[in-house]
Amino acid sequence: MNAHVCPIQLEQFAHQALVASGAHADHAAITAKLLVQTDTWGVYSHGTKLLGGYCRRLKAGGLQAEGSPQIADSGPAWAIVDGQSLMGQVTSQFAMQTAIERATTAGIAYVGVRNSCHFGAAGVYAAMAAEAGLIGMAMANDIPSVVAPGARQAVVGTNPLAYAIPTRQAPPILLDISMATVAGGKVYAAFQRGEPIAPDWLIGNDGQPTTDGSLYPSQAALAPMTGHKGYGLALLIESLSGLLSGAAITWSVGSWMHDDGTQPTDHGAAFLAINPAIIAGPKFLDRVEQLIDEIHSTPTAEGVPQVYLPGELEWKRRERALQEGIPFPPDVRAALDEVSENWGVPKLP
Amino acid sequence: MNAHVCPIQLEQFAHQALVASGAHADHAAITAKLLVQTDTWGVYSHGTKLLGGYCRRLKAGGLQAEGSPQIADSGPAWAIVDGQSLMGQVTSQFAMQTAIERATTAGIAYVGVRNSCHFGAAGVYAAMAAEAGLIGMAMANDIPSVVAPGARQAVVGTNPLAYAIPTRQAPPILLDISMATVAGGKVYAAFQRGEPIAPDWLIGNDGQPTTDGSLYPSQAALAPMTGHKGYGLALLIESLSGLLSGAAITWSVGSWMHDDGTQPTDHGAAFLAINPAIIAGPKFLDRVEQLIDEIHSTPTAEGVPQVYLPGELEWKRRERALQEGIPFPPDVRAALDEVSENWGVPKLP
Repeated sequence: MNAHVCPIQLEQFAHQALVASGAHADHAAITAKLLVQTDTWGVYSHGTKLLGGYCRRLKAGGLQAEGSPQIADSGPAWAIVDGQSLMGQVTSQFAMQTAIERATTAGIAYVGVRNSCHFGAAGVYAAMAAEAGLIGMAMANDIPSVVAPGARQAVVGTNPLAYAIPTRQAPPILLDISMATVAGGKVYAAFQRGEPIAPDWLIGNDGQPTTDGSLYPSQAALAPMTGHKGYGLALLIESLSGLLSGAAITWSVGSWMHDDGTQPTDHGAAFLAINPAIIAGPKFLDRVEQLIDEIHSTPTAEGVPQVYLPGELEWKRRERALQEGIPFPPDVRAALDEVSENWGVPKLP
Repeated sequence: MNAHVCPIQLEQFAHQALVASGAHADHAAITAKLLVQTDTWGVYSHGTKLLGGYCRRLKAGGLQAEGSPQIADSGPAWAIVDGQSLMGQVTSQFAMQTAIERATTAGIAYVGVRNSCHFGAAGVYAAMAAEAGLIGMAMANDIPSVVAPGARQAVVGTNPLAYAIPTRQAPPILLDISMATVAGGKVYAAFQRGEPIAPDWLIGNDGQPTTDGSLYPSQAALAPMTGHKGYGLALLIESLSGLLSGAAITWSVGSWMHDDGTQPTDHGAAFLAINPAIIAGPKFLDRVEQLIDEIHSTPTAEGVPQVYLPGELEWKRRERALQEGIPFPPDVRAALDEVSENWGVPKLP
């Protein structure tokens, strides 16, 4: 059984580590909160496991410790935010809050972001909008790791997309996906465990599908979900996150993990908020309830207890994590122990 | 070799058939133009092949022949359009034009549609925005035909999503996809030709994947693309097209082909337009060119001439079709011959 970690202690730990590597306390608080929220969902690939990399980049100076995101240009229903190379979480929270504020009066708002960095899980920003009663969408570009149909090499990033729909009582409907068939982390994990690599996961550098997990990532890249569909949607995300915001695109984006830590990565991101209260009035939430009830009453395959809404399992995990602690897998625990050693923060109990 | 049809003659034919079944001439002109545009892309499943069904529904009265779409409510950056049970093309073109107009000043606009019907190919509306220099998105709901993970039956429609990105010289980047792994038409076609059904295409009414094409559609439904991803995105489209607009959702939507032709179907749809000229200035188009050049120079797998942008092959087909005629497959020709007989319109040469 995995040892459980108290979310409050974990947030304090993350805050201390970020401050120890140079972050402003306010920025550390935002990032710590969002990383722990992601862990409570059970999405460990995008939670506090990222801390070590963020700390190194803060110390090296590629992530700026001081300053605040700036609105570079804007109108009543849109804004472009310059992230000043601050942590992606700081800039992205500011950008989504800006989108929420503008959509509150305008009905809809787009906020594009440039000079940002890795922003963690897209879902945390979409959820912010839903918690304010709005429909939220969040997306970002990244260094290429996903091929296009017919290509021998990666063309676009995994380019995550999340959305959230507010509900009357239950937590928001929440989807957070990448445009690859599966995440790179899943390829690594399957290979390390000796499990098979499915034929639609990887494309080798001859442009053909491969099931040899040892080739990834040096000689194979991720396949786009359902071929041209994932590739095409990744380009939409690139357009809204990078082309429209003025951020770096594709191979110009820096790798926050592997590239020179002293240099900004110039990731782009995009946030959309739509206000159902203005556009549809209170009936919107009635309709959401009707949809939820209908999906919950769908007959299921043998052994399947329920057809779930997107995010429903993650919110259940969060509820349990807030009561019983987060059941960290060993690799996350090991990553945090390393953070503890590197930045002089007391180990988590 | 398929006999080629002149697009101009085809548009006249479609116009005559729609008018013969009761359509207002202006409405017939819009629908004829958009259906033929779709055929020139080679997307025959959503082109003039649909004419017969539209004509029957017009005659029966479920599609209204007279009137015009009404703006039910609106703000500077959004609108809700009541389609008055007119042809989906008429209402959708009006809705996208409304989105384009509002985004021209507001930077971004959302237009939700209710009381609409089948709108053909989503791509034609996205392309309208791009031809006006804007980023366009178009989507719609439909009667359920796609399962959710773990379900024994369809939960959501194929819920098409299209987007278009304007370019400086080339035709727009254009993607038009459904949220199923493959379209139902592809399942029918493969089964009829005796070709195999891939294991990720269909889910039987026991909730398990099946490769038995004879089960579709009575005892099997379409699988969502990449499982939870397609299901989740279909619910986003349902939310923006149906929940927000006040249209029918899921099983309340009428089947435009199979249900009582005297009754409206109350399809929902959503249109988004984003104006790069306001948000990013003229540099936006430079960045689009940079992205296009980069993708075109990507090394390809053996036998693959080029990595294409989404829509690039469809625009090339259109260019050829405008010069040489549309190379109709026999099933489309047969469908149009039937229209000719039923509505007293001279056969296409």
